[in-house]
This record gives sequence, structure tokens and C-alpha cells, in this order.
Amino acid sequence: MRIPPGVSSTDFSAAIAKFEQAVGKEWVFTDDGDVALYKDAYSPFWGESDELVASAAVAPDSVEQVQQVVRIANHYKIPIYAVSTGKNLGYGGSAPVYSGSVVLDLKRMNRILEVNEKSAYALVEPGVSYFDLYRHIQERGIKLWIDVPDPGWGSPIGNSLDRGGGYLMANYRNHFDSHCGMEVVLANGEIVRTGMGAMPGSKTWQEYKTGFGPWVDGIFSQSNFGVVTKMGFWLMPQPEAYLSGTAYFERYEDLMPMVEIMTYLENTRATNGMPDIGSPLLSVTMIQDITKAYSEPAPPTDPELNALIAKADVGKSPELQEYALRKKIPYWSCKLSFYGAPKANSANWEYCQDKFSAIPGAKFMQDEFYKLPLTPEQREKVHKPQFGIPSLAMFSIGERTPMNPTPANGHMWFSPIIPRTGEAIIEANRVFQEAAKEFGIPVLSAFSLPSCYWERAFIYIFAFPVTHDIETNRRNRAAFKKMIQRAAEHGWGEYRTAPAYQDTIMNTYSYNNHSLLRLHETLKDAVDPNGILSAGRYGIWPKHLRERKA
Amino acid sequence: MRIPPGVSSTDFSAAIAKFEQAVGKEWVFTDDGDVALYKDAYSPFWGESDELVASAAVAPDSVEQVQQVVRIANHYKIPIYAVSTGKNLGYGGSAPVYSGSVVLDLKRMNRILEVNEKSAYALVEPGVSYFDLYRHIQERGIKLWIDVPDPGWGSPIGNSLDRGGGYLMANYRNHFDSHCGMEVVLANGEIVRTGMGAMPGSKTWQEYKTGFGPWVDGIFSQSNFGVVTKMGFWLMPQPEAYLSGTAYFERYEDLMPMVEIMTYLENTRATNGMPDIGSPLLSVTMIQDITKAYSEPAPPTDPELNALIAKADVGKSPELQEYALRKKIPYWSCKLSFYGAPKANSANWEYCQDKFSAIPGAKFMQDEFYKLPLTPEQREKVHKPQFGIPSLAMFSIGERTPMNPTPANGHMWFSPIIPRTGEAIIEANRVFQEAAKEFGIPVLSAFSLPSCYWERAFIYIFAFPVTHDIETNRRNRAAFKKMIQRAAEHGWGEYRTAPAYQDTIMNTYSYNNHSLLRLHETLKDAVDPNGILSAGRYGIWPKHLRERKA
Repeated sequence: MRIPPGVSSTDFSAAIAKFEQAVGKEWVFTDDGDVALYKDAYSPFWGESDELVASAAVAPDSVEQVQQVVRIANHYKIPIYAVSTGKNLGYGGSAPVYSGSVVLDLKRMNRILEVNEKSAYALVEPGVSYFDLYRHIQERGIKLWIDVPDPGWGSPIGNSLDRGGGYLMANYRNHFDSHCGMEVVLANGEIVRTGMGAMPGSKTWQEYKTGFGPWVDGIFSQSNFGVVTKMGFWLMPQPEAYLSGTAYFERYEDLMPMVEIMTYLENTRATNGMPDIGSPLLSVTMIQDITKAYSEPAPPTDPELNALIAKADVGKSPELQEYALRKKIPYWSCKLSFYGAPKANSANWEYCQDKFSAIPGAKFMQDEFYKLPLTPEQREKVHKPQFGIPSLAMFSIGERTPMNPTPANGHMWFSPIIPRTGEAIIEANRVFQEAAKEFGIPVLSAFSLPSCYWERAFIYIFAFPVTHDIETNRRNRAAFKKMIQRAAEHGWGEYRTAPAYQDTIMNTYSYNNHSLLRLHETLKDAVDPNGILSAGRYGIWPKHLRERKA
Repeated sequence: MRIPPGVSSTDFSAAIAKFEQAVGKEWVFTDDGDVALYKDAYSPFWGESDELVASAAVAPDSVEQVQQVVRIANHYKIPIYAVSTGKNLGYGGSAPVYSGSVVLDLKRMNRILEVNEKSAYALVEPGVSYFDLYRHIQERGIKLWIDVPDPGWGSPIGNSLDRGGGYLMANYRNHFDSHCGMEVVLANGEIVRTGMGAMPGSKTWQEYKTGFGPWVDGIFSQSNFGVVTKMGFWLMPQPEAYLSGTAYFERYEDLMPMVEIMTYLENTRATNGMPDIGSPLLSVTMIQDITKAYSEPAPPTDPELNALIAKADVGKSPELQEYALRKKIPYWSCKLSFYGAPKANSANWEYCQDKFSAIPGAKFMQDEFYKLPLTPEQREKVHKPQFGIPSLAMFSIGERTPMNPTPANGHMWFSPIIPRTGEAIIEANRVFQEAAKEFGIPVLSAFSLPSCYWERAFIYIFAFPVTHDIETNRRNRAAFKKMIQRAAEHGWGEYRTAPAYQDTIMNTYSYNNHSLLRLHETLKDAVDPNGILSAGRYGIWPKHLRERKA
């Protein structure tokens, strides 16, 4: 049996015995085989001594048991690391940031406590998955959609605490933003309910977020200040219909006005789904899709195009432009989605076309139109998350990407946030391509386009491969860290990362001699003086470990 | 010169001298006349020894000066109370919660640091008012709207930190929710920037809210954990057009489906403005307005109607229903607003009518249609805040309400949050009317309807009068406190209040032996160990004052 660092074997044995009393012997895992399941399946430390491992795992079934576990951990000063359910692949899996911690596995707390159809919310425990919630809703014929990430095997609580995103309207897409009300077990074992939940018998815990006095919910996300045991989420009532359409643009410079118009359209909610931008010209994989739109399609893998792209400067050259015009392949595309009444969707799509028509040569194609709910046949055709349906189909994007063409054993997501402008897209491509070359990592695709999970900013999600070769992994880890620095030099910060990089990234948020991190540490020491909860998570180490590191 | 409690006159004089060095002699106010300006103009303690007063005021011009003031206050343990600009009438004005504190008046910090039209945001200091920001935007021909409260003389920073609301789309209406990024001076004088602002040279401080690691912004709202010196706000790009229309319903029971359908329509964004619900039948003041909609209008003050209302049970009786049907006066109305392209607005309004038509007898009237921007003539006709224009015209609602018919010297807002259902409206009317009778305060109007500032919950805003009669004020304060308790017994909590009631309200958020308040206190002691910042605000007292109170 592995023993957590800084804990005596006597204390650890005593703590394990107490954990067993608290949750039942069968829900305390100490066998090597069981404990190994909490390793990160995509660990960049595979086969190395730095690999993050648990010493044991405890799986309570109730908030009272969580309280007991936390109190026992406090008594014996056992580091514990809370996880919900799901995989968290590419962002660290379930492995503790502080190796040797006891994993507090909340998967058994999988109760859907309430789904309120009229008021369109759900209250769930951490072990509930998006699939669980979806099934619960479907079985009861409730006409609510959940905003799911892709793949959807995760936990609404876990995903929102890591600030994941989905695909529906902006007000649902940001999973932390669309939560309402929390229950948290603090390090001292006390239960706190936030927002209106702090009022006994409250009628609006899931309806009004901020309650009275300081709104503390945010400090429990991407942190280690408490164990969240319940959360409410605002759900999207099933709309009447769905429409999507794509605008296509001819010229490189069109990227700038295209993004500006798209942003206006989303900020005024003329389009209320997640926009999706692409480049039929530069993304070879996309070329086949656009044959519907153009009468004279280029072959999917035209050697002339590949050669032009290879010679272009961040996707731009006179020859490439000439090719695009000659072959009638659009440089850019912007797909918009509309949820609502059929006539309103059509009117909004018409209006969006009108706005985009300010860009000469813009062309348009209506893509999908569905009356909702989808028929079983339609369900199999669509990108399910855009209809509130969890799916594992897109899981493969994590494995094979243009950046990661040869099958690897996993990936690490590099996820910088950039401004929502065409200029920023071009600058990011220049910077990241040069950096990739310099750091000797697989070059990015000819031109990479960001996603619109967040309504006001773009996010790039690049996969760094994880292999079964220790030297390759070391090089990739070093390159990942250099990429973090390079991004920071340009004012681009990551929103989330695996434990291997959390300190490095938090260190780039260094304004005023790391005053924000120092504030985190002040709060940490106040709410968890023994530093038992999820030490190191998002760069926050308890006092005794900060001192040891220094 | 008044001296803050617990401070020696020597120390206070020394501190004042240091404040003068820091900000300039002319920006430190100690004369009784100057200091009296910080009293609450609507103080419920008028003429009593409990009236909250400042001992002095300091008005720094820059964040560096704020740092100096805070450091001086820390050194001499002077209690200071930060205010931005505006009036905050009904919620406590600028008076410190802890009487005798030095007001830290941020009105000179009135710089509009950035307005970014393409990315639709502003970055401002606390002394900037909604009017300042509006003028700045207008003078430059920038096509952005600000979501303003009504009246609009307040500060975007002050209003959002107190969690005020406005009138535009739901994603702008909640002023705290629509902020992005803060700069805060902590009690130790350190500057923290939150979200992406913690990255030096960040490109997305006003574009991505949560940054990396715990999102701390919420703890600086309705609290005393720091002095906010900059905040970003997402603004609404000027839409193409505005449409409003009202649905009318015949029967008492229609309230329930009306609210349910309205909520569905807003949650799916079929209507994207703030809904406004009314009762032409029960609100005598509204009767004249509906003469447009009905061929046989009732006279504005029909004694028969008044008698029926007086005898009805929470707005309901067979006779009243019969009267409403006979006179063709709708029981309920629901006005919806639409921002967007003209055709999309019309299609959405048509869809909303279609949904409301599930209620038998529903009638509809289109109200306003404007291509935007408004012409000067149109501006004078509209309710300006619904067009992003700050105004003082509605200020009078605070003075004369059905609940407060005789001119008083001010008012205190009682602002409970209730669920967004028709059932909750009826229950709230029953409870608050009975309570008003029991507590001997002016009875509410025959039937009160809540506002929809928040997208998922209703808020009632009742005015309790403030007079120049000490006994009346005492009775009204006692009744206010009883009303808080009565609301809490029904699970309804207030979202905001004047200093006189902050402890009482925070005490109703008492789940698990006040564990949320105790968490606030733990955080307070950690970030402000000397307890110098805004002691008592929202029920949070520093350690030495908690001990004294206990």
C-alpha cells in the first residue's frame, strides 16, 4: 500500500480504518489494481517516477459521508483529491495533482434530486453524468435540453467546475455561468449552501444565483477550497425548430469583417446558437463538404493546393488567392445556428445573410432545418450536442487531429483564449506555427481556426500527443511549457489544463508579483488550514507545501 | 471633528494628515458640512442617535492613491467605507454601515478607460456614471448600448457590485453577470486583477470572465473584501429595430399559464427583452392605458370596481371576474419586447401570440415599433432605459407608489426574490398583504406584480416610507424587519438592502447555523485582518467588532 507523502503509516492505517467505518469497507480502495484506475489514462508521465498516483480511494454515498471523510482527513492530515465522474481526458483524468493523495471519488453520489420542467432547471449530485441526466429527462418525457460537452460522459458538476462548454445558446453554453446554487463541504466538514440555498426552505435556490452578500460560488471552481456536493443548472426548454446556414467568403481579408459581423450577430442574438467558423480552402478535410455549395469543386486532395498552402504565409499568398477564386473554393465559412420558431429562424438567417452581404462575393447555403423534437432517423444524422444529446461519437477528435495524425496513446489539450477578431486568429496562427517549428513539435495544420464556446472570446484547442516513449513525452512536455510561455508573451492565457502544467500556467497570470495567486493562497490557508483538499490544484498549494517547494 | 470609534484622536489626526499627503489637502473632508453630505438622504434614522454618519471623507484620484489610503488606514486601523458615485437611494445612500467610518469616495476616479466598439465592451473606473458613459459613447458615434438602471445617475461599478439590474436583453440586464474583469485594491494595499487581467499584457481581460483558477470576482460584490478600482462591462450592440406587443388575458386563473408561457418564451429567447406583467383590472392606474385595446373601456375610477377589489380575496372573486368579463377589462397583461431585425421581431411576436393563444380568450396588441436608432422625437416618447438611455424620469416611482401614496421624505426598498410562477405571485400577495395589515403598515396595492429584472426569478420591490417623524420611522423599521422574517418563513430572501437591515437579512440566510455567513467571516478575516474595509457591509463584521457585538 502506498502512503501519502508526509503521513506516517500508523496514521494512514488509522485513517483508512476510519474511512471504512464512514463509507463501508467495500468503498475504500487500497489494492494496487483498484488504485491504479485513478491514474490519468493520458498521463504525459507514463512510465516515469513523476506519474501522479493515488494512495487509496474513498467513495462516499452521501454528503454526510463526505463530511466524515473530510473530518477524518483533517484529523490525520491526509491529502485528499475530489473527483466527480467521467474521464477528463487531456486535462488530467482523475489523478491527484499532489501524488499520493487519497482520491475522494464522488461517483456513487449520482442522484438527480430535481428536474423542474416549468422553471427549466436541474439539481444534481457530482456522480451524475450528462448521460444519466439525459436519460432521466427522456424517460419522463420532460421537454428540456441539457447543454452537453463533447464527448458527453462527464459530470455536469465536474465539467462546470472545470469551466467546460457546450454547443447550445450562449446562455447555456458556458457551463459554469449557467449553474445556479451550490452545496459545498468545506475542509472543516461544514456544509455551506450558496446563493438562495443559504436560506432554510428557500424557494429560489436554483432560480437566483447570487443570494445576499458576497457571491462565493466562483471560488469553488478550478480550485481546492471545498468539495461541491450539489449544484443546480439552468436547462434550455426544447425549442420549436432548428435551422442552420453557412456563409462563404472568397478572400483572405474577408476573415476580419466576417468575424466582426458574426460577433455582432451573436451579441445581438440574431443568431442564438454557437457559430462555427471554417476554411474550406485551407482545411483539406473540409473540402469534400463544400462540394454541395459550389458547382466546380476542387478534388479533395489537389497536389497543387497542398503545394500552395505549404508555401503560403499563414494561409495567405497571391497564388493561393488566385487558386481559390479560380476553383471557386471559399477561403472562409461561417455556419450559424438558430433555435426558435421556424419563421423567426428564417427571418434571422435572412438578416444574417443581409449583414454578411456587406462582404463582396459572399455566398450562402441553408444547411439543416428540423422541426423539434428530432425523429429517430434525424438524431442519427446530426451533431447530437447541438440538440442537447450527449454523445461519444466525437471522442475520436481527441485521438486524431491534423496536428496529431499518427495514433498516439493520448493527448494533452493546449487551450489558449484569444480575442474574438480575425486579426487575432491570424496572429495566433503565425505565433503558434512559428513556435511549433521552433520547439520541434508536429506542425499545426496549415491554418487553425478557433472555437466559439465562449460568447465573447475564441478558444484554440490543440492536442499535444502523449506516447509510450518516455523521451518523446519529455520533449512534448517541455514544448507544452514553452508554448504556454509563448502564448503568455502575446497576452493569451489558457483557461484549463492538466496537473502537469497547472503551476506553469498559473505562473503566467503574474500581474503585480502574482497578486492573484497570493490571494488564492490567502483564501486557501483560511478555508483549509491543514491543506488537505486537492493540494496543488490549479497552482494552489497549501502553506506547508508552499514552504517545502520554496 | 467626529472621530471613528476605537481610534484615538491622535491617531486620527495623524491619519488625516497622511491622507492629505496622499490625495491632496483639498480632497480630504472633515468639516461637518462636507461630511454631512455622505449621510443617507433617505435615512430611516433621521434625527436619531443611530443615524449612520461619516467621520471624514477622502477622495483619491487614482488607484495608487487608493493604495496609499488603504495602507494608511491599515496602519492606524481607521475604518473606511468605499463608495463610487450616484445616490443609492432606498438602499442606504453613501452612509457607512459602521457609523463613524471614513468614506473613501471614488467619484474623482471617473475615467472611461476603453470603449471597444467591435468587441462591444467598456472598461471604467468607479466614479464613472451611466450618464458619463452614455455621453462618451454618443459623442463618438459608437453604436453600443449600455444597460442602465432606472434612475440612471449611478455608477456601473457601484450598481453591479450591489447587483443591480436593467431593462435590455437578459444577458445584459443582470449588471453583475455582464461584467468581465476587475481590478481590486485589497486591504493590504495590493492590487489584484481578476480573470484574464491577472496576465500582464492580457488581450482578453474584458472578453473572458473567469481566467484560470478560482474565479474570485463574486466575493467582491455585496461585500467588504476589497476596493474595486476598475471593471469591464459587456455592452449590447445597437440592434436594428425594436418591437413590443402586449398579450391580454381574461380570467384570474390565466395568470398561471401566462407566466409559464412567458418564461418559456424568454428561456428560449423567442422574446429577448424584459417582459413586463400587469393587471389592467386590479391596477387602477393602468386602466386608462388599456382603452386602446378594448372597445368598451371601464372608467378609470369606477366605484363598483374599487368596491369589488376591496372585497376580493387576493384579487379574486366571482363578482370581480364577472365584472372583468362584462366590462371587457383584462385581468392580466404581459408586454414583450423584441430587439433585432424587423422581420425577426415580427416573426417572434407572432410566435409568442401563437403560444399565448393556448389560453382561451387571449387578445393581443402590437405596441411600439421603431427602427433604430430612435429619432429625437421618438426618444422623448419611450421608456429610455429600454433603449439603453439613462434617465431620471422614473425617479418619482420611488416617491409615490400605491403602497406609499402620501409624499414621504424618502423610502426604503424591500426587495424579495420569488419564484417565476403565477402561483408564487398569488402566494406572495396573500402573505405580504396579511403581513402589512398585521404589522400596521400602509397596505399594498390591491394586487402587486413583480418585475422581471432577473431572467429566472421575479423580484418584488416595495417602498417603505421614510418620514421626518421619529416614531413613525421606528414603527416602519420594526415592520420592515418583521417583513424580512415573514418573507424568510416562506423561503423568499431579499437580494439587497440598506445598512439598517443588512444584519437582519443576512441572518435569514441561516442554513446550517449560518455556515455561509461564517464562511464570509473566515474570508474577511483572511483578506482584511485589521477589519478596516467597510465594516458591517452585508452583515460581515470584522473579528474585533464581532467579538464586541457578541
